[in-house]
Amino acid sequence: MQEQQPTSIGVIGGTGNLGAALATRLAKAGHAVMIGSRDAERAHAVAQELSTNLSKAISGASNDQVAEQADLIIVSVPFASQQSTLSALADKLKNKIVVDTCVPLMPPKVMRVQLPAEGSAALRAQAVLDESTRVVSAFHNVAAHKLATDDQVECDVLVFSDDKDARATVVGLANDIGLRGLHGGALANSAAAEALTSILIFMNKTYKVDGAGIRITGHFDLSSQG
Amino acid sequence: MQEQQPTSIGVIGGTGNLGAALATRLAKAGHAVMIGSRDAERAHAVAQELSTNLSKAISGASNDQVAEQADLIIVSVPFASQQSTLSALADKLKNKIVVDTCVPLMPPKVMRVQLPAEGSAALRAQAVLDESTRVVSAFHNVAAHKLATDDQVECDVLVFSDDKDARATVVGLANDIGLRGLHGGALANSAAAEALTSILIFMNKTYKVDGAGIRITGHFDLSSQG
Repeated sequence: MQEQQPTSIGVIGGTGNLGAALATRLAKAGHAVMIGSRDAERAHAVAQELSTNLSKAISGASNDQVAEQADLIIVSVPFASQQSTLSALADKLKNKIVVDTCVPLMPPKVMRVQLPAEGSAALRAQAVLDESTRVVSAFHNVAAHKLATDDQVECDVLVFSDDKDARATVVGLANDIGLRGLHGGALANSAAAEALTSILIFMNKTYKVDGAGIRITGHFDLSSQG
Repeated sequence: MQEQQPTSIGVIGGTGNLGAALATRLAKAGHAVMIGSRDAERAHAVAQELSTNLSKAISGASNDQVAEQADLIIVSVPFASQQSTLSALADKLKNKIVVDTCVPLMPPKVMRVQLPAEGSAALRAQAVLDESTRVVSAFHNVAAHKLATDDQVECDVLVFSDDKDARATVVGLANDIGLRGLHGGALANSAAAEALTSILIFMNKTYKVDGAGIRITGHFDLSSQG
């Protein structure tokens, strides 16, 4: 299995809370990052704002441009717009790694697990995208407002994909930004992490937790991934 | 919300690894426990074996008798026999709390999430049982061989039910046996914990972990459950 470093990372929906936090942490880790929005002007403005105090500036552009120019694309949009966003960009995402972060929350019942007919948002992404697109699913359980700080965030990132190399690349990115990335198996397994987010939201409310996360316990031999 | 202590706990499938470990820990915590098996003789023999070194003996009987006599019933049978086992006992389980521990593993692909058409094994249990039966779903993620020891097991127990009082009772039982029980919301949310088990099995293999578990991170106000 090969963990390849992407030369440039794009974040579709990069002006949102999770997208912006991921972009900032990835830039701090030394990656070339561009954020996208439907409104290129807005992407540009937010990129400039996020780049304050960063040695490596984040650039901003339209979602279209980001999908075209970056070689690994993180998609951070709400479930309601996941399908339309990916459909519109499908051509540009051919042969690229797409990291879908989508959690199938259906307001107002966000504390209730409601997986889509496809089984998971990740499988829906793969169904919309071209076969050549290597879909990886990750970053479902980390609280965006915690990721937006410089603090250590106590949360594992479960990474799913049918493409082991692409999965290893994203495990590496999670580690780069100070989380622990863990291989979670096939893309279909993403249902577990997606569903878990509703439980974390439920616990935040029930137990007054400021951003519950998850840790997989046990002694891990991190040299034996594959 | 009321957390009521059951006066007697039955474990259907109590001769299996998880069932026997739960029965033993519950007996050690002072509960009156009986284990059931399709074969009453076998239940009796295993109960006697488990009772060695216990101040409070575990009794053994047929599944039918356990379902009839206990007032809280833990069901610990494989997914393949869940539906038939519950159907056969449905009458006797009316108006009782039933704790389903079933994970929808479909050998040989046990490392792949394959949730049933109902959405989860827990919802399937509720569909089979009478409306008066208060179904709770729990104990999906704890490794049976770890639970069978006297050691501290580093794993949270996510507890799901549409009946808050029944859920609170089972959270209490999880705490009684040295785990941390946490309210996870509606019964439908059980999909998250059930799916997670396939990921834990995947990680055990991938990272050579001896029984991975989960912890929900964050600062919990355990006085504010509801």
